[in-house]
Amino acid sequence: MSTAGQVIKCKAAVAWEAGKPLSIEEVEVAPPQKHEVRLKILFTALCHTDVYFWEAKGQQPLFPRIFGHEAGGVVESVGEGVTELQPGDHVLPVFTGECKECTHCKSEESNMCDLLRINTDRGTMLNDGQSRFSKDGKPIYHFVGTSTFSEYTVCHVGSVAKVNPAAPLDKVCVLSCGICTGFGATVNVAKPKKGSSIAIFGLGAVGLAAAEGARISGCSRIIGVDLNPNRFEEAKKFGVNEFVNPKDHNKPVQEVIAEMTNGGVDRSVECTGSIQAMISAFECVHDGWGLAVLVGVPNKDDAFKTHPMNFLNERTLKGTFYGNYKPRTDLPGVVEKYMNKELELDKFITHSVSFADINKAFDLMLSGQSIRCVIRMEN
Amino acid sequence: MSTAGQVIKCKAAVAWEAGKPLSIEEVEVAPPQKHEVRLKILFTALCHTDVYFWEAKGQQPLFPRIFGHEAGGVVESVGEGVTELQPGDHVLPVFTGECKECTHCKSEESNMCDLLRINTDRGTMLNDGQSRFSKDGKPIYHFVGTSTFSEYTVCHVGSVAKVNPAAPLDKVCVLSCGICTGFGATVNVAKPKKGSSIAIFGLGAVGLAAAEGARISGCSRIIGVDLNPNRFEEAKKFGVNEFVNPKDHNKPVQEVIAEMTNGGVDRSVECTGSIQAMISAFECVHDGWGLAVLVGVPNKDDAFKTHPMNFLNERTLKGTFYGNYKPRTDLPGVVEKYMNKELELDKFITHSVSFADINKAFDLMLSGQSIRCVIRMEN
Repeated sequence: MSTAGQVIKCKAAVAWEAGKPLSIEEVEVAPPQKHEVRLKILFTALCHTDVYFWEAKGQQPLFPRIFGHEAGGVVESVGEGVTELQPGDHVLPVFTGECKECTHCKSEESNMCDLLRINTDRGTMLNDGQSRFSKDGKPIYHFVGTSTFSEYTVCHVGSVAKVNPAAPLDKVCVLSCGICTGFGATVNVAKPKKGSSIAIFGLGAVGLAAAEGARISGCSRIIGVDLNPNRFEEAKKFGVNEFVNPKDHNKPVQEVIAEMTNGGVDRSVECTGSIQAMISAFECVHDGWGLAVLVGVPNKDDAFKTHPMNFLNERTLKGTFYGNYKPRTDLPGVVEKYMNKELELDKFITHSVSFADINKAFDLMLSGQSIRCVIRMEN
Repeated sequence: MSTAGQVIKCKAAVAWEAGKPLSIEEVEVAPPQKHEVRLKILFTALCHTDVYFWEAKGQQPLFPRIFGHEAGGVVESVGEGVTELQPGDHVLPVFTGECKECTHCKSEESNMCDLLRINTDRGTMLNDGQSRFSKDGKPIYHFVGTSTFSEYTVCHVGSVAKVNPAAPLDKVCVLSCGICTGFGATVNVAKPKKGSSIAIFGLGAVGLAAAEGARISGCSRIIGVDLNPNRFEEAKKFGVNEFVNPKDHNKPVQEVIAEMTNGGVDRSVECTGSIQAMISAFECVHDGWGLAVLVGVPNKDDAFKTHPMNFLNERTLKGTFYGNYKPRTDLPGVVEKYMNKELELDKFITHSVSFADINKAFDLMLSGQSIRCVIRMEN
């Protein structure tokens, strides 16, 4: 029997307050409205951004809320005016959207959609400013337009990428956020040449994905930089073949890297969000052609500071958001890269838990054990 | 009778001490040594960099010295091992060279030759560490490997571009420095698209050349930014069609430009060297695709400072040196752009004086009357 147009009762992992374990509850999920789709989530991974907003240390808390934004699922029903998707389509919801109408979407270069750009403060849907989730008649807030820690969720159609139905959703779900962010930073923005050198700052999931991009690009020297030496062994699987721990040196890491590379690396990608790492990542690239790419999100009050001669000596500094991928236009192609075995995703997925054990995924991330833990919604 | 291999006695404008008028003297010019050529200079323009080092306020003074680095001439004779040039070739000496052997010269992206990169401190030739100029047996120092304020000069072959002998040297001489610096910053680095918007900070010769690049690129909005409103009328000839004087506004000029352009310009080029202008030039470009190019040389102690989110919102900041042109490889092509009437040079040359009146060229520049004053060596 079709559930289209009906309220669906299902299980969701609700965050009632900051930093407290999620609670699996029965919630009601309203039907999709104009330009919305309702998805049955099959797999969702946990990303640091979920943890950051769940901890709610750095921003206005908004609770109760359903987190989750790295996921794969199937379209259950579509709202008015939705023509691009239909029930049964395999999809990846994405935390930032693509309306295809604004100047950003029409620009070849930008993926920062005016309408659907990430908004971490908003907990409701654009169409009516209301939540589609409720329990006992009281609303539960959305998170970045995805809220995938629920068996069913409602998204704006512009935030949902349709992908090859043959792709295993338990694997490609990790492309919804961190992996594309790092991988795209390298392949779409840094664009290292075959045989070139690159430094990757931060060897978490995003940095390892940046390294994976460097491996696929044929970089000969992939220098991983991290304060935690435990990450170096794992990083080798992602192509990292040299390591620098800034703590091991009594001079700035950019000087260490310049000495290792006869003047600097060809490319660098910064995936920590530390302002000092950003400055080092820029200053460690070679004059004449070096390009540094910033990925990590800084603190509100940080200032990037360098001597302008570092630019005038023909260095370039770029920032990127979601690896410069346009979610709807580009994600299907990234999925194909996995399908044809160019891009390796399985090695990012170190753990898997059932939905009932979702809080274990938080523990694994907080203790630094997991790169990605996939949460199985059905078993 | 050939002068090859002989010391040539000729006139040169000698700077005996900082800030004092140049003195036309008879000097001796030694023959070119290994990998050197001796040039007969026909036309030389005056550039701010000559004035800056003549004033010697910001750096170690080196006197007596023969300044001059924007020039056109003819090869008089060549030294040992020179195969690329021969007597009679029409050439432009350039303040920065291209050895064609180092990693920079072999890189497609860099023009910052390891061997012949601009060196303002060195007053002698590389081959033997001596000057080729003397008077009464005492050496007179070279300037940036060109010293074109002399009827004859000696340059490293890597610092000399051979150009079309049909090109009028009294016009194309200005391509040796400022015009290529600004023009290349736009066409080689900013690369604005047809119909796009661009802001040019500083409307001196370099900024006007950047505007000329924007005009040729088909930019629809070319916004000139300068503290001196007298420059706006002249700038219209170079394609500048809107003006902003930061003094006319009580908010940062980047905000003024963002308001004028619905979020920011597509490109900006900074040609003043003021650190505040550099920051404004970066922050005035549009998120998603904006690219700012730094050209102006900053003070030693300046710090470029901005919030890193300005990068993460997909803005790019690049610096350039000599418009990213490789002097020997690329200058002949720029000369052809003039020959086929794509690039307009005549409008840059506002004044012309005889060699005897070279100090007038300094007065015209210091009083802000000239864009370029060409000095005629022969009459």
